Amino acid sequence: MKKSAAIIGGGVIGGGWAARFLLMGWDVRVFDPDPEAARKIGEVLDNARRSLPGLSDVGLPSEGVLSFHDAMSDAVDGVAWIQESVPERLELKRKVYQTLQEHCPTDAIIGSSTSGFKPSELQGCATRPEQIVVTHPFNPVYLLPLIELVPTDQNPPEMVERAKVILTEIGMYPLHVRAEIDAHIADRFLEAVWREALWLIKDGIATTEEIDNAIRYGFGLRWAQMGLFETYRIAGGEAGMRHFIEQFGPCLSWPWTKLMDVPELTDDLIDQIADQSDGQSGHMSIRELERARDNNLVTILRGLKAQDFGAGALLNAQDARIGTPAAMPADPAGLVETVRRAVPLDWTDYNGHMNEARYLQAFGDATDRLMEIIGCDADYIANGGSYFTAETHIRHLDEVHAGTRIHIDTQVIAGAGKKMHLFHRMMADDRLLATGEHMLIHVSLETRRASEPAAHIAANLATIANAHAALSLPEGAGKAVGVR
Amino acid sequence: MKKSAAIIGGGVIGGGWAARFLLMGWDVRVFDPDPEAARKIGEVLDNARRSLPGLSDVGLPSEGVLSFHDAMSDAVDGVAWIQESVPERLELKRKVYQTLQEHCPTDAIIGSSTSGFKPSELQGCATRPEQIVVTHPFNPVYLLPLIELVPTDQNPPEMVERAKVILTEIGMYPLHVRAEIDAHIADRFLEAVWREALWLIKDGIATTEEIDNAIRYGFGLRWAQMGLFETYRIAGGEAGMRHFIEQFGPCLSWPWTKLMDVPELTDDLIDQIADQSDGQSGHMSIRELERARDNNLVTILRGLKAQDFGAGALLNAQDARIGTPAAMPADPAGLVETVRRAVPLDWTDYNGHMNEARYLQAFGDATDRLMEIIGCDADYIANGGSYFTAETHIRHLDEVHAGTRIHIDTQVIAGAGKKMHLFHRMMADDRLLATGEHMLIHVSLETRRASEPAAHIAANLATIANAHAALSLPEGAGKAVGVR
Repeated sequence: MKKSAAIIGGGVIGGGWAARFLLMGWDVRVFDPDPEAARKIGEVLDNARRSLPGLSDVGLPSEGVLSFHDAMSDAVDGVAWIQESVPERLELKRKVYQTLQEHCPTDAIIGSSTSGFKPSELQGCATRPEQIVVTHPFNPVYLLPLIELVPTDQNPPEMVERAKVILTEIGMYPLHVRAEIDAHIADRFLEAVWREALWLIKDGIATTEEIDNAIRYGFGLRWAQMGLFETYRIAGGEAGMRHFIEQFGPCLSWPWTKLMDVPELTDDLIDQIADQSDGQSGHMSIRELERARDNNLVTILRGLKAQDFGAGALLNAQDARIGTPAAMPADPAGLVETVRRAVPLDWTDYNGHMNEARYLQAFGDATDRLMEIIGCDADYIANGGSYFTAETHIRHLDEVHAGTRIHIDTQVIAGAGKKMHLFHRMMADDRLLATGEHMLIHVSLETRRASEPAAHIAANLATIANAHAALSLPEGAGKAVGVR
Repeated sequence: MKKSAAIIGGGVIGGGWAARFLLMGWDVRVFDPDPEAARKIGEVLDNARRSLPGLSDVGLPSEGVLSFHDAMSDAVDGVAWIQESVPERLELKRKVYQTLQEHCPTDAIIGSSTSGFKPSELQGCATRPEQIVVTHPFNPVYLLPLIELVPTDQNPPEMVERAKVILTEIGMYPLHVRAEIDAHIADRFLEAVWREALWLIKDGIATTEEIDNAIRYGFGLRWAQMGLFETYRIAGGEAGMRHFIEQFGPCLSWPWTKLMDVPELTDDLIDQIADQSDGQSGHMSIRELERARDNNLVTILRGLKAQDFGAGALLNAQDARIGTPAAMPADPAGLVETVRRAVPLDWTDYNGHMNEARYLQAFGDATDRLMEIIGCDADYIANGGSYFTAETHIRHLDEVHAGTRIHIDTQVIAGAGKKMHLFHRMMADDRLLATGEHMLIHVSLETRRASEPAAHIAANLATIANAHAALSLPEGAGKAVGVR
């Protein structure tokens, strides 16, 4: 039998919870008096359906059934989990718990999305306080794994373990907060940063955009992977966390913290931090941590580059400054250099060399460049014409590793009408690494069918193809797999 | 003529600057009295050489020349840029400036890596204060683009512009800080978070690891791409930034900020923030921002997944929980299902469909799975045996878009000795999207040469190959590019 969850209060947060449960195969029963609730949850679900399933490299369970209910008593019928995301007013939340505890299974877990209240406050007037915990998510709930799970002494340990199992099952990371405090953990950081940001704007030091850039081009890239302490552990170098704190800790009493109350950096506190950091990261040397950090940064930066966003957009702008603009070759008789680059760290795999799919990525870049050279550029594509690859034949002839500088020389085997037949040679200096033979078809992006290219593209392609007709057919061209 | 930069003070920060300049084609002249300086800078350079060049999709200039100098006067000879990264003691820094200004070109820019001093303090006793600015980087300097560029009224605007051009040229993002304040901009946030983190540890609320997880599984993933205000603009929904501040701003006066002085949220301040946010992000609707955010998050998360780190390691653990363990098929006569998944958002390209290289990535995953099924799993690979792809033939038969659920059925055309000849069919329900024909060779990972697989792998592969021998050769197998 499918498990089911009740979502009490829709909106962006409740909708995100609904999406998590649904896409992981749970049935979801929504109660929200807002007449717009179905539309609002539908919008969040649209976003979740396009982004969440592809995060997984295996098939997810089939989606559960979503239903809307006019009465809370109906929504909580037979559910294993109840997620409360109603507005942040304590009296309202307490009233909701009283109503739903009259009807829900006594072993259902009631999680609250609250960022503003401690679990003991929520449990205050409840019929069965032991059923209620804080499970504080982060937006977008369907993508970010963090859940702050804050119980009190009223919650039996068995129930807290069961909550962790369910949260893990729907792809979340339950961070068990060992003692309830205002704002739990993450929001204390968010509040602290928000406070500084307001001062910077009020004092005219920086704009919202400058502040965002100060975050996303710098420490934000570090925090997406390692957080605060593992990052600083690296900064401490081989001397480690203790060295970092002793060196930088005193900054806290510098003038810019004059408004703030700061804990005294006693030997005990330094020991505590250094020991915890050893427990967390001590299995890796600083050098290993540095390389893991750099692998992650390169991966994140190159991912953002593919999205042309944030620090990735900066890198694209840099490439445009460094690179040579695409132009028809002065002498079309020679091979066309279509790629010159270093193999990035994120192109290698468990065999320690460039992954087979990245060979095709590089060949695809070579094809894109040749398209640009003959005039099939971003403007042309935006106007509805492009080339699609119909067929590819790759011969992997030698290994290549991260950091190696490679280039690709391209021969046009044929280029007339709708067809473009290319042969790429990937080289590291004089070493032939791979060949790629590709048949491309010009298409209309409107009809998604084969179509004739524009006259200037056909003419440019013919110029190169005619000149390359004098070259011999490359070794390996026209071959099937396994045929020598 | 090549441009040259002087690095005054090596170490992690100076070394990072040296790497930036060198890898972008500048000559670099180092002064550092530490006898270990060459080794330390060499270690940073090793890290930079493996990570920085591959960030670019075009070829970088050839590397400059690195030299070490015993005298500061020699190091600064003829340079266009001088980067000072000596220890954070004002008297020391002032003394360094006096010495180097006796010898350096008067139009060289002297940038200080200081996080602790304002530029007016650095300029204090200088012969030519107009030459000195703060250019504060973030570690690792060779990868993170942010530079806080803080001038004073003493610096001519022409010189500030020249500094921006040079910093941009070496791949950095100069954030021009309009007024000097203690800690510039980013470190105010870092200090605020550090302060909260110390309290959490001292009060026993969370460990260093729990704090790191609270950051990197949640808001850290948001901050790597959008920062603070653009993220909150989305949280405000269609009602926008004003709505967000009015709704959440009051939290600042809640109890957990009782230690802090907080600016009053006057109408003027709210207007200022809302207007700046409109200027920054108003060209995108909230829906567009949401989708950009989700594209970025999926890209970052999947990148971290490939590195098996942070939130990506959580996703791998989830896949392991959801997925079916690899096992020999009960009936080897049928095709083997080797992939079942949704097309992720980061697999699509400018043509709006799955990029050609991602077809090969999916086929590569299918091959990996078949290898696992016959016993060539992570343990076997760790012990020195694996299969490498020698040849690939892909036919792209139909388009597929993000979110579509695909599966791959695999036929073993031949599998004996060192060879494995596979044919993958990629489907979306009954629609044939592509075929992939692959020749793989078993290799020794030590010699990197062809070798016989272990007996159990040969036996398992033979079992499937023999059963599949009864199947007809698939349509499209054994064909060369362009041959029907």
